[in-house]
Amino acid sequence: MKAICLLSGGLDSCVAAAIARSQGYTLHALTFDYGQRGQTEIGHARRVAEALDVADHKVIDIDLRSLGGSALTADIEVPEAAQEGIPVTYVPARNTIFLSYALAHAEVTGASSIFIGVTAVDYSGYPDCRPGYIMAMQRVAELGTKRGVEGNPPAIETPVIDMAKHEIIERGIELQAPLEHTWSCYRDGDRACGRCDSCRLRLEGFARAGVEDPIAYADN
Amino acid sequence: MKAICLLSGGLDSCVAAAIARSQGYTLHALTFDYGQRGQTEIGHARRVAEALDVADHKVIDIDLRSLGGSALTADIEVPEAAQEGIPVTYVPARNTIFLSYALAHAEVTGASSIFIGVTAVDYSGYPDCRPGYIMAMQRVAELGTKRGVEGNPPAIETPVIDMAKHEIIERGIELQAPLEHTWSCYRDGDRACGRCDSCRLRLEGFARAGVEDPIAYADN
Repeated sequence: MKAICLLSGGLDSCVAAAIARSQGYTLHALTFDYGQRGQTEIGHARRVAEALDVADHKVIDIDLRSLGGSALTADIEVPEAAQEGIPVTYVPARNTIFLSYALAHAEVTGASSIFIGVTAVDYSGYPDCRPGYIMAMQRVAELGTKRGVEGNPPAIETPVIDMAKHEIIERGIELQAPLEHTWSCYRDGDRACGRCDSCRLRLEGFARAGVEDPIAYADN
Repeated sequence: MKAICLLSGGLDSCVAAAIARSQGYTLHALTFDYGQRGQTEIGHARRVAEALDVADHKVIDIDLRSLGGSALTADIEVPEAAQEGIPVTYVPARNTIFLSYALAHAEVTGASSIFIGVTAVDYSGYPDCRPGYIMAMQRVAELGTKRGVEGNPPAIETPVIDMAKHEIIERGIELQAPLEHTWSCYRDGDRACGRCDSCRLRLEGFARAGVEDPIAYADN
């Protein structure tokens, strides 16, 4: 029983993959290098994959930078304060592109499931993290793949979609997910900045879970 | 009024783009270099784009070869005889990947439509060329993009989906689409082979349309 696990190097995808592992799946990890500012993420995804003892890990280059349009791929300043509406860090159609490659990989490997660590709770600003969107992609898996036509489409699994950050952290600790190898900061560097939206959310999550974050932060 | 036009270098996408042009759209062409055997296709896509006088043309590298699984990307022999069921030339989730990038490009450019030259008539073996599949991707456009959330999703247009090959050719001639720059052969070369499934289908189409195919074929 194989699962494609999308690994970003972050907390949520690490815990989603640990949940797949706990359900008995052999893990086939998939990471996307899309010219994001946080190049650090790729290295973290590799360490998370290794710690999770995946069967294989593919890092796919995707050319989102040439399309532009996001603070994570273009030269837009990453904001430190919380924002209203859809954040500027939203990458157009990112999860759709990721899940499309995952569907292709599932066809080739025969994986029965695709695990993606989207969460609708703390990132409700992103349109492509909501349950309705995932259902639409599931329909694409049913109608647009060979295995779907044969009545056996891969299932898109979103085990952390309803969890708040502290719940994801608690579940990860329970499953001995390698949280110490994850990276959440929107900036590159040896240590996380501790100040961007993503670092704040992570730190609040660990605080609410009542455990210390195992990664290093820059002195502010 | 802008349209993203997926151009493969083939007949169907050329005519789909000519239809978009005839409806008054400014064309933003998008072509994918996915390590396909037919590298020739990319050059043809460039010439088609130029002849259609597009506003811009992006050629995006996508890494499908590393995922394998198709005669068009891996080392599987391209068949000459017609096949039953889903052809071995089916590339897993290809149109889903293409349309995902098109959705991203539509978000960034503000294009109101995406034109794709899928046809359910002559390629009914491919799951991702059928109307139900396109409707599922339209739902993804509505739920998974910023513009969709704002009530203004890009519309996925499939103007040749119900046309047989000879009808596509007739419509292309009517609209002065640059059919002479298109390429349909599954093999690379200066001239089309005239023998693979795709060449046969094209030649039958021109024969039924009662016009001569403007491209050169190898002497067989």
